[in-house]
Amino acid sequence: MRQSQLFTKTRREAPKEEVSTNAKLLIRAGYINKEMAGVYSFLPLGLRVRDKIAGIIREEMNSVGGVELEMTALQNQELYEKTGRWSDDVVDNWFKTKLKSGTELGLGFTHEEMITEMLKNHISSYKDLPVYAYQIQTKFRNEERAKSGLMRGREFLMKDLYSFNDNQESLDDFYDQMKGAYERIFERVGLGDLTYITYASGGTFSKYSHEYQTLSEAGEDTIYVSEEKKLAINKEVLTEETLSELGVKKEDLVEKKAIEVGNIFKLGTKFSSALGLIYTDEQGEKQPVVMGSYGIGLGRLMGTVAEVLSDDKGLIWPKSIAPFTLHIVSLGIKDSEAYKVAEELYKHCGEKGLEVFFDDRDIAAGEKFADADLLGMPYRVVVSDKTLKEGKFELKERKSGEVKMVNLSELLAIVK
Amino acid sequence: MRQSQLFTKTRREAPKEEVSTNAKLLIRAGYINKEMAGVYSFLPLGLRVRDKIAGIIREEMNSVGGVELEMTALQNQELYEKTGRWSDDVVDNWFKTKLKSGTELGLGFTHEEMITEMLKNHISSYKDLPVYAYQIQTKFRNEERAKSGLMRGREFLMKDLYSFNDNQESLDDFYDQMKGAYERIFERVGLGDLTYITYASGGTFSKYSHEYQTLSEAGEDTIYVSEEKKLAINKEVLTEETLSELGVKKEDLVEKKAIEVGNIFKLGTKFSSALGLIYTDEQGEKQPVVMGSYGIGLGRLMGTVAEVLSDDKGLIWPKSIAPFTLHIVSLGIKDSEAYKVAEELYKHCGEKGLEVFFDDRDIAAGEKFADADLLGMPYRVVVSDKTLKEGKFELKERKSGEVKMVNLSELLAIVK
Repeated sequence: MRQSQLFTKTRREAPKEEVSTNAKLLIRAGYINKEMAGVYSFLPLGLRVRDKIAGIIREEMNSVGGVELEMTALQNQELYEKTGRWSDDVVDNWFKTKLKSGTELGLGFTHEEMITEMLKNHISSYKDLPVYAYQIQTKFRNEERAKSGLMRGREFLMKDLYSFNDNQESLDDFYDQMKGAYERIFERVGLGDLTYITYASGGTFSKYSHEYQTLSEAGEDTIYVSEEKKLAINKEVLTEETLSELGVKKEDLVEKKAIEVGNIFKLGTKFSSALGLIYTDEQGEKQPVVMGSYGIGLGRLMGTVAEVLSDDKGLIWPKSIAPFTLHIVSLGIKDSEAYKVAEELYKHCGEKGLEVFFDDRDIAAGEKFADADLLGMPYRVVVSDKTLKEGKFELKERKSGEVKMVNLSELLAIVK
Repeated sequence: MRQSQLFTKTRREAPKEEVSTNAKLLIRAGYINKEMAGVYSFLPLGLRVRDKIAGIIREEMNSVGGVELEMTALQNQELYEKTGRWSDDVVDNWFKTKLKSGTELGLGFTHEEMITEMLKNHISSYKDLPVYAYQIQTKFRNEERAKSGLMRGREFLMKDLYSFNDNQESLDDFYDQMKGAYERIFERVGLGDLTYITYASGGTFSKYSHEYQTLSEAGEDTIYVSEEKKLAINKEVLTEETLSELGVKKEDLVEKKAIEVGNIFKLGTKFSSALGLIYTDEQGEKQPVVMGSYGIGLGRLMGTVAEVLSDDKGLIWPKSIAPFTLHIVSLGIKDSEAYKVAEELYKHCGEKGLEVFFDDRDIAAGEKFADADLLGMPYRVVVSDKTLKEGKFELKERKSGEVKMVNLSELLAIVK
């Protein structure tokens, strides 16, 4: 894409009321637009990042047998009455609205009830199990405070997978497969080293649930990390019992702030029993389906990458989720030799299947460099009279800041 | 995909209260699930169709210079006060909700206000124009009655593009390009022959807007079609003046029922003036930006295809938007010769890049055939002891019903 085609502009300053690093940077770079606290539009570059994250999540969900569907935001009161989650006293972040007839509706903060009800049409026998269904859909949560940018949204895109098994053992097996899928996702988006599987409360469902926590001073959670075991314990379950079960000593743990980037839950039969999702087993007996639920917020994940991988000059995207891999900066005005060579390079890289962003604008070099750093594509290449004289390109890796003079084939080999 | 992996089941009967053909068929085939009137979840096969429609729309929007972004559902009262569209007396299909603080919010039924406000950060000079921005996003409309299945939803996915030009002439040029893009979209999803560009009221904005109307007895609109000129006139603007401007005679027009599958609008400066989206022209003068708006409902388009291209046995998808191109039906039980050959064919076609659905279930042949007709993939191939004896495959085209015995290379040549 040519930068002149992109309608968004970078800004020197973020809105005054934004305090989080992720929102400040993403707004300044024109990746997102703040509509109100906790509600952000995704501008073209931001949408490209989020779409790439979605692509990675889809691949990993499909790899464990997930099948994609999409449910709706508007939800029935009736369903939630059955599970006891309609009342604002029980769920404190409902957004509610009304049909013309006066019937009250909820805007989905989650979808356990809806999918459980839906699957009553499709599951009746053990032969119909397991079912692993996921969606990438908007959730609405009426948060009292929403000051963390993409970390805590009132409207945000989430991947939620729901698992339906015939018994606890097959749920346990699938749950372990999902742990693998989640690890691969965090690894692929560039957060692998900073992200720990974290034992947390299982609520009324099971002893523990698991969170994936990414270390960051901006995090809202406090966790205790065991580097040796590559796991962590959420403050809420840091008891003698937990320590002994996990075989770790309190003195080996390090207290850290962290951002919850995913969580996985064994739900058991709470929803299937309440809503009547029952199957007939091989012996002809009726049994409630055994469920699990597995979430990742796409915006939050993007915000976390922006938060923890950036520097004071701007964003630093891993190649896997960068809007473009290569940012070509021409320092010549239109029709100059440098411009023409840059344009040729742009076309050539495009033909090679690279995703390239071409700064073809007629503005000062300093502005172009500042923008390139702020936007954070993994590689920047400069084409100028000076580089032409040397017969080479100036290639800079955003993350390390390392600059090299390279020829075309070296450039392609590095960037690929 | 193996049919045994798909968790949805077909049904003999649709819910009693469904009266529309599109909803009845799509529910029976397991493409959608009704959550409440006008609110449908998209099950895996339905999501595949909608994603393909989205892909076609994206290609055509990009081809005229569109850049994709995504705005939010939650909307500010303030913005709509400025354009006079907040009051329920003016806009009768708002869904509204509230923040904890009591602040009232709307759920977007459209996005002109939001994008106009947003672009004030990015447009200030004639050099920043034109901007063509689109999204594929959920709209919420509090319809009093919603009995037409996917035709009239309370929550539905829509592509809306907004154009921002420096003057009327450049808007007019772009508007004509969009006509081309819209024609290509309807052609590509299989509705080209049945769809007419239709002159309709331009409201307070301009003399005419244009609708794209697909002929169908299920349509809510009445239009007057000129076959010769391949255009139509909406009843609401059928005047002597319109007839003479379009050079058609009333006696040459045929009255038809039709479904509005898209519409395009010149908005002029209504929104830019109200919200202050102003640019400086080449002479240094301040001017309001000249806008246009271009919509297509993805669910409605899918519903229209289901409505007009189906028959009494079920759905009939054009290849371009079918969930799968080829439906392989094995008539052998697992590990039989027929099953093995079918499975090999499934793998082979997959390697060739074909999208294949493989009925590997152990159920009666009649049920498999009925399902294949109901699901409506463009081609069905049967592998049975009988076809094996002949050393061929039995290939049926869903649309024509034509059956042929073919070998592998003939099969691939036809289906590709």
